[in-house]
Amino acid sequence: MSRFLSNRFSSIEPYTPGEQPKVMNLIKLNTNESPFPPSPKVIEALNKEEISKLNLYSDPDTKEVIDAVAAALDVKPKQVLMGNGSDEILAFAFQAFCDSSNQPCFADITYGFYPVFCELFGLKPEIIPLRDDLSLAPEDYFSKNKPIFIANPNAPTGLALSIPQIEEILKSNSNSIVLIDEAYVDFGAESAISLINKYDNLIVSRTFSKSRNLAGARIGFAVANEELIQDMCKMKFSFNPYNLNRLSITAGKESVLDTEYFDYCINEIIKTRDFTVNELEKRGFKIPDSKANFIFPEHEKISGEYYFTELRKRNILVRYFKTEKIKNHVRITIGSKEQMEALIVATDEILKG
Amino acid sequence: MSRFLSNRFSSIEPYTPGEQPKVMNLIKLNTNESPFPPSPKVIEALNKEEISKLNLYSDPDTKEVIDAVAAALDVKPKQVLMGNGSDEILAFAFQAFCDSSNQPCFADITYGFYPVFCELFGLKPEIIPLRDDLSLAPEDYFSKNKPIFIANPNAPTGLALSIPQIEEILKSNSNSIVLIDEAYVDFGAESAISLINKYDNLIVSRTFSKSRNLAGARIGFAVANEELIQDMCKMKFSFNPYNLNRLSITAGKESVLDTEYFDYCINEIIKTRDFTVNELEKRGFKIPDSKANFIFPEHEKISGEYYFTELRKRNILVRYFKTEKIKNHVRITIGSKEQMEALIVATDEILKG
Repeated sequence: MSRFLSNRFSSIEPYTPGEQPKVMNLIKLNTNESPFPPSPKVIEALNKEEISKLNLYSDPDTKEVIDAVAAALDVKPKQVLMGNGSDEILAFAFQAFCDSSNQPCFADITYGFYPVFCELFGLKPEIIPLRDDLSLAPEDYFSKNKPIFIANPNAPTGLALSIPQIEEILKSNSNSIVLIDEAYVDFGAESAISLINKYDNLIVSRTFSKSRNLAGARIGFAVANEELIQDMCKMKFSFNPYNLNRLSITAGKESVLDTEYFDYCINEIIKTRDFTVNELEKRGFKIPDSKANFIFPEHEKISGEYYFTELRKRNILVRYFKTEKIKNHVRITIGSKEQMEALIVATDEILKG
Repeated sequence: MSRFLSNRFSSIEPYTPGEQPKVMNLIKLNTNESPFPPSPKVIEALNKEEISKLNLYSDPDTKEVIDAVAAALDVKPKQVLMGNGSDEILAFAFQAFCDSSNQPCFADITYGFYPVFCELFGLKPEIIPLRDDLSLAPEDYFSKNKPIFIANPNAPTGLALSIPQIEEILKSNSNSIVLIDEAYVDFGAESAISLINKYDNLIVSRTFSKSRNLAGARIGFAVANEELIQDMCKMKFSFNPYNLNRLSITAGKESVLDTEYFDYCINEIIKTRDFTVNELEKRGFKIPDSKANFIFPEHEKISGEYYFTELRKRNILVRYFKTEKIKNHVRITIGSKEQMEALIVATDEILKG
């Protein structure tokens, strides 16, 4: 820390992204990336002609990709805002809608970035514990009358709320925003986007990183009523007007248009998730019912840290969280069938050891 | 504005980027883009193989491009931080080093984003007027003992301070950061990067948008001592750890390595700037001595707004600022020789009219 850093950041603890190792031949199941490349239409569209135009600024309104997203989701373009990944969208939301009179609340076990945003923006969140089975109790969020952030499906559990449950939360908090973080929704949960015209306090955030195989392109977005989007737009245009680069705008648009490839990838991942869950359950693992592209197993005979460490020795990288409540679990991204088969082989070795 | 937006943003006025018109056949000299495409090495490197890897996250440490930048500037990699454009770097600096006890100061006529960052982060800047000839008086910044932000060369004037002048400012403000925004430095001004090991309060920000022909890739960076970079890193990892996408990391690296193409483009732009200045001066324009890839002419017979409007009618887009002190000027980006010749022809018509 330099002697110039503002005192309010003296104890800030930044977010720790999942390890991005440089070594080769590692089976990387730790950051919920897709095992599939981007749509062939994306690869085709990012041609030499497009790349040659990188001397020109990107469209600050990101119109092409917004129009595509809006059409695909059957909402108005003015109900969509693009971000440099959904992390930027979440940051804009914490910044715009939370302050000392509007302190946010979220679960104790959820996306680890929420508390970091709170530190960054000087907020004191209320932390609401999940149930012992790691499910989220909707009633804990009734009539909070403060900004609510819920990952649905939740990370790292994979468990999802139903739309009626989310609707109850929205109804009983009509004077505060409710942000539903749907980073993983495409893998089997229900989206709350259908509710945005009914509830003016709802914001849904999404990402292209997981279900659209574009983690490296950094594309996220928010869907909400026009006024909320305008507010978040003010944050964007006061922070970084050209937040999406040219190639990501094009990649995002083409990805959305290729519905066939999207459906194919999602179905494959769901099938592979079912296969992996089945194999691990046969071996005594307990696994919350995941609607995401990851699973969160625990085994009564081995700790999460041991499983993580032993997998690492066998060149398989998964994610382990030291937090007491979930220390017996590891989070395993659903990769390709071959990768998950290798995980099962390694797991058999570890359980025998 | 929704009823949920935090009161502190009730009157925020976001930055207005230069118009990015969708109409064709426009000579676009309004956003200081380069008329040259990115380096051929950039175009070659962003091949189908790289694009196919977009399903994987980018390196949050952006090591490849940092290593290239550090080597090119003869600084340590730990003295460099990359941003999603230099706007993001500037935002991190305002956020990290300014607060109610450390209010920033900057010129009345400078990059229009500085006051927007102040609104975003709740800061009350001291505004220091330029001299009547639009030059910046270094002595106005002596012993301010508050964070100082100086664009050098300044925008939209193009005028630059010398290194000894900057050094005086650094020396007399040893307990506050001095950020030198060198977005346009490559077009003929001196860089303060040579001073970073001597002054622990210096931050230099740079961009790939202008001199590296990569506005659409969104790449900026800061150079400073390790501690200041660590502080800004905390902002990045608390806001958006994967702030650079994969393709921009690769593009940035390849661009830096291609010194020959860089030198060629810079020389061409400087030659074309000299040509344009010469032609406009012949026609009675007064132009501050620009060290940037734009010029800021005024003419005693026509107002800035009139010149801007008449050029627009002739499909030439330049930038006009309504601010009283500079209302007789327009800012004209140095494009290709052909574009500037067209500007001269149009200007002749306008002056006759």
